[in-house]
Amino acid sequence: MEGRNTVLEAFRSGKTIDKLFVLDGCQDGPVRTIVREAKKQGTILNFVPKERLDQLSEAKKHQGVIAFAAAYEYAKVEDMLKLAEEKGEPPFLILLDNIEDPHNLGAIIRTANLAGAHGVIIPKRRAVGLTATVAKTSAGAINYTPVAKVTNLSNTIRELKEQGMWFACADMGGTLMYQLDLKGPIGLVIGNEGEGVGKRVKESCDFSAAIPMAGDIGSLNASVAAGVLSYEIVRQRLQG
Amino acid sequence: MEGRNTVLEAFRSGKTIDKLFVLDGCQDGPVRTIVREAKKQGTILNFVPKERLDQLSEAKKHQGVIAFAAAYEYAKVEDMLKLAEEKGEPPFLILLDNIEDPHNLGAIIRTANLAGAHGVIIPKRRAVGLTATVAKTSAGAINYTPVAKVTNLSNTIRELKEQGMWFACADMGGTLMYQLDLKGPIGLVIGNEGEGVGKRVKESCDFSAAIPMAGDIGSLNASVAAGVLSYEIVRQRLQG
Repeated sequence: MEGRNTVLEAFRSGKTIDKLFVLDGCQDGPVRTIVREAKKQGTILNFVPKERLDQLSEAKKHQGVIAFAAAYEYAKVEDMLKLAEEKGEPPFLILLDNIEDPHNLGAIIRTANLAGAHGVIIPKRRAVGLTATVAKTSAGAINYTPVAKVTNLSNTIRELKEQGMWFACADMGGTLMYQLDLKGPIGLVIGNEGEGVGKRVKESCDFSAAIPMAGDIGSLNASVAAGVLSYEIVRQRLQG
Repeated sequence: MEGRNTVLEAFRSGKTIDKLFVLDGCQDGPVRTIVREAKKQGTILNFVPKERLDQLSEAKKHQGVIAFAAAYEYAKVEDMLKLAEEKGEPPFLILLDNIEDPHNLGAIIRTANLAGAHGVIIPKRRAVGLTATVAKTSAGAINYTPVAKVTNLSNTIRELKEQGMWFACADMGGTLMYQLDLKGPIGLVIGNEGEGVGKRVKESCDFSAAIPMAGDIGSLNASVAAGVLSYEIVRQRLQG
């Protein structure tokens, strides 16, 4: 989306804007209004030179602003808890600490749907959002399983802990997953493809869950690890 | 690889050639020798018009033959059984019925390595081979976990059944995986991304294993399904 009116209208209609690019130093009234709206909604703001905007522009009429809308709408974390309540199930959420590969995010939303998770939570910064590739890889799950975007994953974990949820962090150095009780209201935290779960997020969790590893290499693919851990939760819950 | 000498030399040195493209109607002595070698080794043969060869050619000196070598060497199924025996473990093999996506194949080899499987078996036709993308997605596992390529998956299953192995086919309509005994010598069969396990391969298996599905969509991603089923085998084996 480009051009002042188009972008401003998008913000006002409540559309989720993933990223906003604004001409650096531009102080025009309409542009300042757009920046104010973006800040209010927590959109990622990038102030860039004219050359960058020209390069990003498709219609060649950006007027100093280009916005990237989410391909799909984001949900709220409260909606996920409500969904769990409606189903009469203890909440089961999957939190992703900076997953970068859209194929991984899509596959995890697909897994979340089939494992009966009530939602997927991703951070606003440094992570892939709900792009067309994510939607395609999710095999339609994106239309059923809510995905929320939060400013700070650690804060969200702390808030949900106050509401009685427990958080398990995927970590090779953790307790073998079979030895943990994963039946209650739970948030499963999966880390970034290269670095795993970040230090601060890990510290916010109640415990670390390890998948047994017999092999020669470092770790499972992030979406496979999410699948294996999610299904350990499913198994324990089915056992009652 | 292109040109008569290069391709013939590759065959004679025992290099694994995934696919051979030959000029249609060409009856030259060297080309006939190459075709004979290719047939002997079970290489996929494609007779194509000159335009196709010109298009495939990079060095523009194909002389009527272009060969695609495997990026990595294939192992033999017997080597996998030997590996299991050396480790004192009941064999655990993963068989893939026409996986087409190199990212899925790579992720499954990675999972096979970490779940302690002794090898991955893929069919010669209509499936992705050990390409550079597969190697990269396997995160190094391709250097440790043997991958074999067989002409006919059903025949391989029948031969291995005679040696005491059992085969579980991934199938949504099967028995819930927790209710199956997966501790013995086992081959886990995972189907194609779109169509699942083919009819004939399925009929060769001893039983079908289902992952519980709570959601709104059809099926898990193939590499996630392979991960969840592999780890059910790991869990049962760890329980002893």
